Amino acid sequence: MTMEQPFTHVDSTGKLRMVDVTPKRPTKRRAYAGCVVRTVADLAALGPSANGLDPVHAARLAGIQAAKQTANLIPLCHPLDLNEVQVEVIANAGRIEISATVAATHRTGVEMEALTACAFAALSIVSSLVDVDPNAQIDDLVLLRKTGGKSGDWGRLVDAPS
Amino acid sequence: MTMEQPFTHVDSTGKLRMVDVTPKRPTKRRAYAGCVVRTVADLAALGPSANGLDPVHAARLAGIQAAKQTANLIPLCHPLDLNEVQVEVIANAGRIEISATVAATHRTGVEMEALTACAFAALSIVSSLVDVDPNAQIDDLVLLRKTGGKSGDWGRLVDAPS
Amino acid sequence: MTMEQPFTHVDSTGKLRMVDVTPKRPTKRRAYAGCVVRTVADLAALGPSANGLDPVHAARLAGIQAAKQTANLIPLCHPLDLNEVQVEVIANAGRIEISATVAATHRTGVEMEALTACAFAALSIVSSLVDVDPNAQIDDLVLLRKTGGKSGDWGRLVDAPS
Amino acid sequence: MTMEQPFTHVDSTGKLRMVDVTPKRPTKRRAYAGCVVRTVADLAALGPSANGLDPVHAARLAGIQAAKQTANLIPLCHPLDLNEVQVEVIANAGRIEISATVAATHRTGVEMEALTACAFAALSIVSSLVDVDPNAQIDDLVLLRKTGGKSGDWGRLVDAPS
Amino acid sequence: MTMEQPFTHVDSTGKLRMVDVTPKRPTKRRAYAGCVVRTVADLAALGPSANGLDPVHAARLAGIQAAKQTANLIPLCHPLDLNEVQVEVIANAGRIEISATVAATHRTGVEMEALTACAFAALSIVSSLVDVDPNAQIDDLVLLRKTGGKSGDWGRLVDAPS
Amino acid sequence: MTMEQPFTHVDSTGKLRMVDVTPKRPTKRRAYAGCVVRTVADLAALGPSANGLDPVHAARLAGIQAAKQTANLIPLCHPLDLNEVQVEVIANAGRIEISATVAATHRTGVEMEALTACAFAALSIVSSLVDVDPNAQIDDLVLLRKTGGKSGDWGRLVDAPS
Repeated sequence: MTMEQPFTHVDSTGKLRMVDVTPKRPTKRRAYAGCVVRTVADLAALGPSANGLDPVHAARLAGIQAAKQTANLIPLCHPLDLNEVQVEVIANAGRIEISATVAATHRTGVEMEALTACAFAALSIVSSLVDVDPNAQIDDLVLLRKTGGKSGDWGRLVDAPS
Repeated sequence: MTMEQPFTHVDSTGKLRMVDVTPKRPTKRRAYAGCVVRTVADLAALGPSANGLDPVHAARLAGIQAAKQTANLIPLCHPLDLNEVQVEVIANAGRIEISATVAATHRTGVEMEALTACAFAALSIVSSLVDVDPNAQIDDLVLLRKTGGKSGDWGRLVDAPS
Repeated sequence: MTMEQPFTHVDSTGKLRMVDVTPKRPTKRRAYAGCVVRTVADLAALGPSANGLDPVHAARLAGIQAAKQTANLIPLCHPLDLNEVQVEVIANAGRIEISATVAATHRTGVEMEALTACAFAALSIVSSLVDVDPNAQIDDLVLLRKTGGKSGDWGRLVDAPS
Repeated sequence: MTMEQPFTHVDSTGKLRMVDVTPKRPTKRRAYAGCVVRTVADLAALGPSANGLDPVHAARLAGIQAAKQTANLIPLCHPLDLNEVQVEVIANAGRIEISATVAATHRTGVEMEALTACAFAALSIVSSLVDVDPNAQIDDLVLLRKTGGKSGDWGRLVDAPS
Repeated sequence: MTMEQPFTHVDSTGKLRMVDVTPKRPTKRRAYAGCVVRTVADLAALGPSANGLDPVHAARLAGIQAAKQTANLIPLCHPLDLNEVQVEVIANAGRIEISATVAATHRTGVEMEALTACAFAALSIVSSLVDVDPNAQIDDLVLLRKTGGKSGDWGRLVDAPS
Repeated sequence: MTMEQPFTHVDSTGKLRMVDVTPKRPTKRRAYAGCVVRTVADLAALGPSANGLDPVHAARLAGIQAAKQTANLIPLCHPLDLNEVQVEVIANAGRIEISATVAATHRTGVEMEALTACAFAALSIVSSLVDVDPNAQIDDLVLLRKTGGKSGDWGRLVDAPS
């Protein structure tokens, strides 16, 4: 990929636009994203005995619900129906790994939906522990892979999240 | 701060709860958060000549609007009126720095609102350049400082965002 | 129907998921639901002379609008475009009967949308009379019939709402 | 309580209104509501071994989130900040009991918020099992108790939910 | 009023901001706005015999519900609790007059809430008749009067809506 | 067009309905709408030197975001995915001209989406200057043109906005 590619969301006068996708045909799209929450709080310690462990459940559900709100929150994004949203949360000591998969049959990709799901699952985790560890940090929020669409499949080269 | 502090959002059986803040008095609260977007796309190159530079404006507005939706997106958060939301976006080559300030006069803090504003300003930036640089990455999403409330003022010790 | 059928919204580890419907083809779906509000308040008495009778109108509109929000409110539900929403409210003395029809051309059914429309029409009615009759009660909120989809048509055997 | 009391949400011409509460002083309000889901599906069977049991978690979170949306969904309801939302879900064989508590310091009561929380926790449960038991039924959605406000405390006389 | 007054929503560098209202005390605020829908469609003809006349009811409810969403839709607006929303719709032949009153006890005014209520009541009317009269036009959407707040009471000099 | 055409959103008993569009085939639809904001405030004066001119950017983004919320705000409107939303704002002294284009491939038209985009871009502009010019007025909010759908293309005869 070179930097010669245009910013498709910005027209020739520098103005942002929600790109017209009318000419595109709906195709199956899928995107995977991930991020990590770094914290000294031991979320995992709550785990085995606490068969509730609600912060992790809440995070997964917050991610699913946020994915559906992506277009309402990001001006550039097209509203679209989603075929699937999955959010995984793995709570290790000091490091909570989050990943999301989003699928749609649509004219546009679902990259932002997958990133939004991760961001809100992570923010939900942080909301659970911010009183205990206000230094909790969200990092490595990245797109991992996408399939479908005219530009074809794409995968992140480097290992992510690191 | 020690890890002896309880997770206030989780009750003794491990179940998540939206804490009862009825006994608290409303006080002036303020929180500052920040994050960075790392990218090989040169958002700044659009800048001086492009008196629109809409991606940056869109990001600031997306952050402001997302802050108002925090309680709708994060299960633990109390809905609350906000006195102020400010989002700053500084587009350097390869590194876009985002910060947010949120204020309220309320029974609970506005940490999550500030973090949410940063996250969505960053996601809005990423949505502008994801076609050009699908490797764009959001990092160092952290609380920087908070004031007000019973637990008093708090500031992040280490320099952030790094 | 036997209980051997799986809970499709729960995976083999017991984790809730928003099921992937990508392989399904969009088909015409329709669902009918109903419920009753039992109350000693005489909503019907407002009727003939009050050519406004706003509580009933409000209820119908609240049901229509809520149907569109179903996926935002129920974590498992797929967001989808709706072809039609109809809500009927029949105010008898002491018993207000509510029914809803929802249609879509989609990969998933619209059962939850029809139930949500009924629930919110009923809640809107209750909000009109809760000061007069705080004992008002919503009952018999059930799916009545559905058509379309792989599992075929289904109708409730017993008379409902009773 | 007699039926002489006016419908406060309807003016003298029968038109619905969102009542002006400007003259009222904010006071501490609390409301409790409940409902049941009747089903032949054995949600409880998923329980002891499945430390996820996501349908119950999802229901609790759906109820919490819906409570915050009450004013957006019910035309008569005033938007208000909430101090607390708690939703309990007890899954017995064939009968799932749901209750909700909502608190606010406000000019209006939170009865509708508590009822809305119950309704959506129940609908979320139903969405988990509708493929297994389309006859699942929501009943006895009632206000159980309220405290605070000019009209004083109130409790349902009969045992509810029955 | 002179044009020397600053645009309070724009800072010295021309950047939009959601103004910090922390130092302000909550006071009782009220705003009145109005607009007209001009149309050759005879909405009034539906009236006397049609005790439903839903388009007018729908318009009033759409206005009430939109007022609550003002801050979610207008980036500059502070989210706030509303004490009252009233929307009136008078359907004359060829000219439908809409007015709205909004009240709050808050740090900021409710001018935009009243204007938003009128706009959406009018848009709801237009949605009812756009197939019959695509030339329907919304005009004279103006603030009529406001009370409360530091800047004091204000009323529009000219007769409006004309 | 004659007035013999029925109000399609009202059934034979005068009750509003969200029309069933199931039998319709999705086709490419596009609608253009416009309006003006009249004001003595000189928004344009902020322009050349202020490379931010945020009120205009905010207005464009507010219009884009509001278009996506149309069905949530107007009871009659079908929820639908949008292919494109464009909002233009031209700030002249004393007169700000707003236009919007919305496209979808759907069973229903996007007239209301285009009108909603204009209305909210205009309201966002008004929110920027209401403190300076409370007499600011929104006028000539009209549909300009639509293409696609069974009823065919349509264009406003008179010059609009005037």
